[in-house]
Amino acid sequence: MKVVALAGGVGGAKLTDGLAELLSPSDLSIIVNTGDDFEYCGLSISPDLDTVCYTLAGLANPVTGWGQRDETWTVYDFVKNLGGPDWFRLGDKDLATHLYRTDQLAQGKPLSAVTQSLCNVWGVKHRVFPMSDDPVRTIVHTADQGSLSFQTYFVKKACQPVVESFEFKGVEQAKPVPDALAAIDKADIIILTPSNPWVSIDPILSVPGYRSALKKKVVIAISPLVAGQSLKGPAAKMYREIGIEPSASAVAFHYKDLLSGFVFDNQDCEEFEKIQQWHIITLLTNIIMSDEQDRIRFAEEILKFSEKVLIRSH
Amino acid sequence: MKVVALAGGVGGAKLTDGLAELLSPSDLSIIVNTGDDFEYCGLSISPDLDTVCYTLAGLANPVTGWGQRDETWTVYDFVKNLGGPDWFRLGDKDLATHLYRTDQLAQGKPLSAVTQSLCNVWGVKHRVFPMSDDPVRTIVHTADQGSLSFQTYFVKKACQPVVESFEFKGVEQAKPVPDALAAIDKADIIILTPSNPWVSIDPILSVPGYRSALKKKVVIAISPLVAGQSLKGPAAKMYREIGIEPSASAVAFHYKDLLSGFVFDNQDCEEFEKIQQWHIITLLTNIIMSDEQDRIRFAEEILKFSEKVLIRSH
Repeated sequence: MKVVALAGGVGGAKLTDGLAELLSPSDLSIIVNTGDDFEYCGLSISPDLDTVCYTLAGLANPVTGWGQRDETWTVYDFVKNLGGPDWFRLGDKDLATHLYRTDQLAQGKPLSAVTQSLCNVWGVKHRVFPMSDDPVRTIVHTADQGSLSFQTYFVKKACQPVVESFEFKGVEQAKPVPDALAAIDKADIIILTPSNPWVSIDPILSVPGYRSALKKKVVIAISPLVAGQSLKGPAAKMYREIGIEPSASAVAFHYKDLLSGFVFDNQDCEEFEKIQQWHIITLLTNIIMSDEQDRIRFAEEILKFSEKVLIRSH
Repeated sequence: MKVVALAGGVGGAKLTDGLAELLSPSDLSIIVNTGDDFEYCGLSISPDLDTVCYTLAGLANPVTGWGQRDETWTVYDFVKNLGGPDWFRLGDKDLATHLYRTDQLAQGKPLSAVTQSLCNVWGVKHRVFPMSDDPVRTIVHTADQGSLSFQTYFVKKACQPVVESFEFKGVEQAKPVPDALAAIDKADIIILTPSNPWVSIDPILSVPGYRSALKKKVVIAISPLVAGQSLKGPAAKMYREIGIEPSASAVAFHYKDLLSGFVFDNQDCEEFEKIQQWHIITLLTNIIMSDEQDRIRFAEEILKFSEKVLIRSH
């Protein structure tokens, strides 16, 4: 079975890591949100790409959910001493990634090629694609603090401002990465991983070309919410502020046009009937991935469910 | 006596360090070449400004002539491991300076204000000005390797290409830093420090406004050549390749239109008459600054000589 996973940060990274344990590099490709990308101290930073790649490479920091394990903070501490910006923490190893990426982009290499080079060094065999080689920037329009770049909202303001709407600046002009689109065309199943629907998966779906490619495919999604709460990040808060009760069914509704299958947590079993009314095949299970073994257990369930959805869809 | 020193890298930094020991902050300002500035991995790097500031702050690496003392190389080594650029060595402390500067420039702060902020943190009390807040980039046109940015010629190519001519890109549009120009107007004496005439002092003199301001002032220069050799760097090689025999008199001739006084080494005493014919007052002494004490000894001689030139010029 050939799988393409769409992923944002932590949740998406954990599931793709589990899938990568079970599927060969030719059977799994990952398309990653770059709406979170930003420029900081002149450096081109791609937080979701790095989280996915670090996780697949076994380099991820298991505590923070971002950055590398066994990190040091020499440069960060000196920048802080100079009175420089310190709201985005840059470890020394992580900084090397950003310096390398910035240099390669400045030389005209597309982000997808830079990502491939990094994966080669890190021994990541599965293909990891940025959603686009063109810059797309997620803007969070807030009720109380104006329009914020995503990282300003997410890190600097710690998700405190009240969200009104999202904008993916540049997305109309952005082209999908050709190899990513080709991977979708060849895929048996597309998995929308349990990343934030608003700011991780929606940016990918908004790049012209992906949504229409996905409409020809069997697509399943996994809820990032359990009992109305985000497992990590501001997804539930965003739903509430936009005026939607955060719930597994709200996530399924969000993706409704695309979905053949939907996976959500046992704790949300009372939403089963609501979701089924949209003719979506469902899997109720434990969707919390608390350790490496759990990622593989969950990925196995997802793949078995995918087979079932595939059979029922044809 | 109010002094303004024009400086490039190492030679200029050493002499200004000596002068700073003898003159109060209100009596010494330094205008530094920024033609060497460049962008590397997205970072805005100002090598001469850093060398002068690190030297005045007591942070300079005494062995290399660039970068900071007690430096570590964590990030540099990781970038190299990723296959990134390694021809310009960036220590961790040095990198923090560049990240800070790049961030501040991106926020719209002029380079002169960024330099002032860094000096404040480092405890540098004397005013250090970049020659301009506008970008000027020294291009080295070579006979064998085309046109090279200065750092490509100087560091990446280790000064090996054969020089044909220099260009200071952007200099026609560049404005002098107003406070630097004001310092010149208030100065009793201007010192062209023993930095490279072609690529350290000439870029400063080429910014519209400085040369005409200097023409109203008493200017002295110090030869960066001893016995036809550079004390450091490619000055002598440049003179030869341009077709001029490198010598103290060649340096004096280079600055002839501006000079009231010229300081050169005892080893070049046979050039005395040649320089005097241009009606330049001369000082023959030991111009090699081998340690901190020597910088002060030499700065004292320069200041005494300056007084003599001032009296004779009025």
